[in-house]
Amino acid sequence: MQPTGQQLIGQQTVAAHGAPIQAIDPATGERLEPIYAGGSAAEVERACQLAEEAYATYRETSLEARAALLEAIAAEIEALGEPLIERAMAETGLPRTRLESERGRTCGQLRLFASVVRAGEWLDVRIDPALPERQPMPRVDLRQRHVALGPVAVFGASNFPLAFSVSGGDSASALAAGCPVVVKAHSAHPGTSELVGRAVQQAVADCDLPEGVFSVLFGSGNEIGQTLVADSRIQAVGFTGSRAGGLALMQTAQARPQPIPVYAEMSSINPVFLLPEALAARGREIAEGFVGSLNMGAGQFCTNPGLVIGVKGEALDAFLTTAGEAVQASAAQTMLTPGIHAAYQDGVGALASHPRVREVARGQEGEGPHPCQTALFAASATDFLASEALQAEVFGAASLVIECADLAEMRAVAEALEGQLTATLQLDDGDLDAARALLPVLERRAGRVLANGWPTGVEVCHAMVHGGPFPATSDARSTSVGSAAIRRFLRPVCYQALPAGLLPEALRDGNPQGVTRLVDGRRES
Amino acid sequence: MQPTGQQLIGQQTVAAHGAPIQAIDPATGERLEPIYAGGSAAEVERACQLAEEAYATYRETSLEARAALLEAIAAEIEALGEPLIERAMAETGLPRTRLESERGRTCGQLRLFASVVRAGEWLDVRIDPALPERQPMPRVDLRQRHVALGPVAVFGASNFPLAFSVSGGDSASALAAGCPVVVKAHSAHPGTSELVGRAVQQAVADCDLPEGVFSVLFGSGNEIGQTLVADSRIQAVGFTGSRAGGLALMQTAQARPQPIPVYAEMSSINPVFLLPEALAARGREIAEGFVGSLNMGAGQFCTNPGLVIGVKGEALDAFLTTAGEAVQASAAQTMLTPGIHAAYQDGVGALASHPRVREVARGQEGEGPHPCQTALFAASATDFLASEALQAEVFGAASLVIECADLAEMRAVAEALEGQLTATLQLDDGDLDAARALLPVLERRAGRVLANGWPTGVEVCHAMVHGGPFPATSDARSTSVGSAAIRRFLRPVCYQALPAGLLPEALRDGNPQGVTRLVDGRRES
Repeated sequence: MQPTGQQLIGQQTVAAHGAPIQAIDPATGERLEPIYAGGSAAEVERACQLAEEAYATYRETSLEARAALLEAIAAEIEALGEPLIERAMAETGLPRTRLESERGRTCGQLRLFASVVRAGEWLDVRIDPALPERQPMPRVDLRQRHVALGPVAVFGASNFPLAFSVSGGDSASALAAGCPVVVKAHSAHPGTSELVGRAVQQAVADCDLPEGVFSVLFGSGNEIGQTLVADSRIQAVGFTGSRAGGLALMQTAQARPQPIPVYAEMSSINPVFLLPEALAARGREIAEGFVGSLNMGAGQFCTNPGLVIGVKGEALDAFLTTAGEAVQASAAQTMLTPGIHAAYQDGVGALASHPRVREVARGQEGEGPHPCQTALFAASATDFLASEALQAEVFGAASLVIECADLAEMRAVAEALEGQLTATLQLDDGDLDAARALLPVLERRAGRVLANGWPTGVEVCHAMVHGGPFPATSDARSTSVGSAAIRRFLRPVCYQALPAGLLPEALRDGNPQGVTRLVDGRRES
Repeated sequence: MQPTGQQLIGQQTVAAHGAPIQAIDPATGERLEPIYAGGSAAEVERACQLAEEAYATYRETSLEARAALLEAIAAEIEALGEPLIERAMAETGLPRTRLESERGRTCGQLRLFASVVRAGEWLDVRIDPALPERQPMPRVDLRQRHVALGPVAVFGASNFPLAFSVSGGDSASALAAGCPVVVKAHSAHPGTSELVGRAVQQAVADCDLPEGVFSVLFGSGNEIGQTLVADSRIQAVGFTGSRAGGLALMQTAQARPQPIPVYAEMSSINPVFLLPEALAARGREIAEGFVGSLNMGAGQFCTNPGLVIGVKGEALDAFLTTAGEAVQASAAQTMLTPGIHAAYQDGVGALASHPRVREVARGQEGEGPHPCQTALFAASATDFLASEALQAEVFGAASLVIECADLAEMRAVAEALEGQLTATLQLDDGDLDAARALLPVLERRAGRVLANGWPTGVEVCHAMVHGGPFPATSDARSTSVGSAAIRRFLRPVCYQALPAGLLPEALRDGNPQGVTRLVDGRRES
């Protein structure tokens, strides 16, 4: 299967007529065929109308039918085989092993959500039976379940062309919740998006589901995305991207006659705290681990360690020396797009020219048109605390080491941080008291707190939180990775004294779906 | 204990110097002592600073300690005894029996949340143990719990001076979640608010908790409320009141450097659908039940049945006749405030003068200064569908009956409705098909769907949903009544590979708190 350059609206492929989009191979600068004619309001209208129609039945599909769709999508993506990997490599500059592993994660998370749908905990069934004899007032029968919010708009991310794009985590969790999905594909990898979109189309058809369950729109600029979020039929938004992009969608969603939730994963610098004992005992090992994490995927991870905080002294100097050497030895990797490369150059340039920042080391320059030259900087905590600009995310393999006078100043740095996806502690046994003092500060500012690991590498599981206080995300009450992500697209409904024949199956006497229920406040599994 | 007219900030009573507030007995028009000097930015600053300080420890109190606080508050409110009821009667015009029952509900919901805190399901503990042998990559230990969002601003409601005011549902659920609370008292019942606030102060002191766990501010106009919501330390808002008030708070919350969630319960007209068989068989009984619900609390309930939809014909005419007679016989009840009375008069006047609306009946005029004269109107479905104004909530005992040509038009009316707290079906066995067709339409528009009951009377239990799509609330993903309300004030945090000594107690091996946990995707209770 070759990409054709068309919009995927329900089961149709549609030629649009808007401004053209063409992927660029960032490793060569070469333009890749085909050209996608961008969609417009007409395509948004058609996709949303179909999604609305599909919502009526898709949200009430059986647990089994919905799980089967998710599994069929995974199988269809795998069946795309080598052409998908090759196209994704060409469009992103990411290496084969990374993309194969990302495909594994993408299909794995679809199957995880299939198991979550079948288990039915997400329904959160609660039954308070009637108490006709209660004094002074009887209680009527009350039953609660969760239902799908409605059609969801998903924005593909540039940095995960499979795992957080057309059929990535947002789409998988929305489909699991019973929400039709309209994807706005990222313009950096339209071919990859189309191939995956066609796999989903095939799965929807094979599962005999209404076609509007899934559409993929292509369009340059912000217009099509804003039109999509403003559409009255869209009931929630999933987005992974820049802070400016996320804020713009939040504003549009709030300005609608009916405001809707936006789950935007935006910016995070993922502070790493080097506690003194660990730094003294294992500084070299930590420095090498750090640079490995920093360089992963050319630093183009939301959880890239962009800030390192330590107490100044010999151990931190040694850390800087080792890390600097590792940075100098770092090969330049191709960045995802010319735009991301340009922004990285700007960000690194701003740090390099900041009067209170010193350059520790730069990596190899690289040869392709869009290489990420790793960069490591340092500044004092005093200067960091005085300059908000030093908290700005530089998307790519750049990091800033903050030198504190003592643990009290380290804590002050922690307290000055904006919301983060992650916060990491490098600690040994002798650091436990220092860690205990920092933990509540970090817990308040991050969705995930790690010890002795690196924030890159996000496990897709039940306990994961890929989220965090603003501006890491627009809504700290949720996660975009892991099984709890399904909750973002649900709302509770209570049914009072409904005749048995009208009750949704999950709420019927005898528990025909076999799901866990809270009955009169007691858990029945 | 007599109210003193002071702000309650932590354990202090503070004399403020802003514009005065004085309660009015709506039954007599008499001004009630004392005068409250309104608070200003200085009082907001002090309350928020104390709340922030209290958050550090209060959010990590043991389940038992937090439950004990909620129970102590209930006991202290009960200990206020007769003076609380008398003050509330004087400030609201509500009758003794209603206020005694509301006090029972208020204390009952505090005790319900104590049981919810102890049960610990709200922690949503998830543990994915390390898999060091997993190929191709090992998995590290990942554990998730929910933590309190931070200090919460609660706005007291005019229509529930106890159950949704200073220590009502919003405060109880926020305190249960581990969030300190700063209440902006409703200016209609400052004395009641102060008495209850002092009861909470006493409970906080008796439980040896940090004083900033709870404060009550008084202030006229919107300024103090807006200042509170804009304060960087406030992390969520609970509000019950008008649509304009809720929208203003949403706007302030979104415009902050860090936007925060607002749970505003705003406006709902609570449609009641009279299905044909039920109407033919039990029209008289339904009409009497309807007018009983309409008049309850002078119609000043969020769930008051403000819209009734039936198919025109003899049975609906008979319903209108019976309902009209019951309305004519309705005694006028005193409304809560002069402002609410004036707004009711305006709303009824607008319906009465609407060219496409006919008046069915008016109740007795009443004698006090602020009587609610019950009012029943009728209009055709065609006219209802053509006029958005007919969906505007009239807060008080006024309702509009919509006459449809047939069931298809009844469905069209349902589809035209904005978001609602409730939707009610009056149905008999022969109506099941018609009900089945309406149910998905109503479920999408309401948080609670009832059969053969009336929406007034909201049970505080586990399965209740008092919420619904915009504009019924600002956030359909939650409920403000019932045990699930605790979720509004929580966010998930993941702990990766933390040493045992740093793990929060709820996440430790051996499950020392004895809470239900999802371990590697399997539920352990």
